[in-house]
Amino acid sequence: MQKEIKIAVDAMGGDNAPYEIVKGAVESVNEQHAHVILVGQQQVIEQELKKYSYDKNNIEIVPATEVISTEESPTQAIRRKKDSSMVVGLNLVKEKKADAFVSAGSTGALLTGALFIVGRIKGVERPVLGTCLPNKKSFTFLVDSGANVDCKAKYIEQFAKMASVYVENMYHIQNPTVGLVNIGAEKEKGDALTKEAYELLEKTDLNFIGNIEPRDIPFGKADIIVCDGFLGNTILKLSEGLSMALLGIIKEEITTGYYKFAAAALKKPFHNIKKRFDADEIGGAPFLGLQSLVVKAHGSSNAKAIKNAIKQCILFAEQDIVDKIGEKI
Amino acid sequence: MQKEIKIAVDAMGGDNAPYEIVKGAVESVNEQHAHVILVGQQQVIEQELKKYSYDKNNIEIVPATEVISTEESPTQAIRRKKDSSMVVGLNLVKEKKADAFVSAGSTGALLTGALFIVGRIKGVERPVLGTCLPNKKSFTFLVDSGANVDCKAKYIEQFAKMASVYVENMYHIQNPTVGLVNIGAEKEKGDALTKEAYELLEKTDLNFIGNIEPRDIPFGKADIIVCDGFLGNTILKLSEGLSMALLGIIKEEITTGYYKFAAAALKKPFHNIKKRFDADEIGGAPFLGLQSLVVKAHGSSNAKAIKNAIKQCILFAEQDIVDKIGEKI
Repeated sequence: MQKEIKIAVDAMGGDNAPYEIVKGAVESVNEQHAHVILVGQQQVIEQELKKYSYDKNNIEIVPATEVISTEESPTQAIRRKKDSSMVVGLNLVKEKKADAFVSAGSTGALLTGALFIVGRIKGVERPVLGTCLPNKKSFTFLVDSGANVDCKAKYIEQFAKMASVYVENMYHIQNPTVGLVNIGAEKEKGDALTKEAYELLEKTDLNFIGNIEPRDIPFGKADIIVCDGFLGNTILKLSEGLSMALLGIIKEEITTGYYKFAAAALKKPFHNIKKRFDADEIGGAPFLGLQSLVVKAHGSSNAKAIKNAIKQCILFAEQDIVDKIGEKI
Repeated sequence: MQKEIKIAVDAMGGDNAPYEIVKGAVESVNEQHAHVILVGQQQVIEQELKKYSYDKNNIEIVPATEVISTEESPTQAIRRKKDSSMVVGLNLVKEKKADAFVSAGSTGALLTGALFIVGRIKGVERPVLGTCLPNKKSFTFLVDSGANVDCKAKYIEQFAKMASVYVENMYHIQNPTVGLVNIGAEKEKGDALTKEAYELLEKTDLNFIGNIEPRDIPFGKADIIVCDGFLGNTILKLSEGLSMALLGIIKEEITTGYYKFAAAALKKPFHNIKKRFDADEIGGAPFLGLQSLVVKAHGSSNAKAIKNAIKQCILFAEQDIVDKIGEKI
């Protein structure tokens, strides 16, 4: 009999905790037959669970009295709050009582905690955060989307390798294309770090397609784009901000005066547009290179986002991606 | 009597050269009483000029037989093509025969040429490229938008100083706000370079408002945003690409089936939206920190963009911005 996969979920992390988190867990159990461990304040979680009907064998609670907020210093929070939902959840993964951990809480604390508690795969220099960035066609997998601000070229090479394993196994894209984010298409373009990373990537067995210019990112020119975490986080956050600003401007322009009628008729296509850019559909951002999967769900995650993050964890565990990354590195 | 300001324009540079460039020069002369020196292949320029009526005292031609293409290595092109429109134009500025130079040609060649031929203001470590980035309210002045890929914190401090002088004098924004692009709002966030730049900016007399997160850039949270040229160019190009992709997606969604009618009714507001993001309205990107102004106009510049770039040069010269930057540094 196949070993049951268990996913630990931080019930206290995120803007909509605990209600949307618990709701997402219940939906997972009901729709995907997942086994979820909710980590956090027992009474609060029990209160939420009472609202729903589900198979009680598939949701358990592991109590944790403390909560780490996004305002706290990540390192201090992880060190001091030993009984926080985040630290307790990460320990479940470390002790192999859970196969993966999902949190919509503080990104900094989660990355720090995951690194110290769960630990790296042998050979991995720096675990990396990957994010599915929506584009005109579908999405691009961006690494590093914010875990490592100061990078060496060697790290970037490893990011590309880990991302290739992830994308190939999770999305069934054979031999995914890898582009290096650079401000010019030619090999000799870019800053010192990028030039060195190019040299390394060229020598790998990855499907490296060379530099990808920022202008081309939203058109989906590569399955994976790779860069340091400072640049990657900028790309991610600027894309989010700009999409919001642009849609805001469009709303301003078309909902005034006699355009209102036409705008109302366009509700459906605008809903489709929002859906094409909906992060909730995709799940969370995987932190790759650790002994188990840790997923950072968006701070504003709703039940659907949590449900999709849990689904992502199950697939990750089923596909043995940790072992496959270990082999690739 | 006030000294007449003369603007040299590269008639051969850009996707729409020479016709749109010459047309823009003529419009400048007719509408703004500018004095323009068109630099390039004499016969070609004369042929274009024949199409228009204008005061012949206000347009002169300085011949240059060669043209630098965007495919050439910038350094080699500037060294070898001594009789190119770009090198000849930059020499006019160096020899004080012109007050500024506008080119829509190769960015790399223009920056290299400007640096070597026109030369820096005393004390300026690295001249910087500034670009007006449209935002939800109006625009943000972004430095460095692509001149210096590998930066030191000291350069970034100077970029902020030069940009402050420029924005204050060109757009009459008193004491413009300066934000440092960073992936977190707190002082201690970011990579090594950004942390060091923060320390330096804090000690200046600029209106430094701390870090600005990429998500907030499109909402116009600062008059000036400052970062290294690799990050800045990424911000600029990603913004362009994403706006194009988003507008493309919207078009796809609303021009199918029975939305067509509603979409047609929205032509005017969509035109307004495009106008709000229209780079042609703003002029070109100034290369600041040189002994004279050199303006990089967009490669796809039309007559309007060239006209606005010329206008920008005149204002720059009138405001003595070179001297003011020298005092500030």
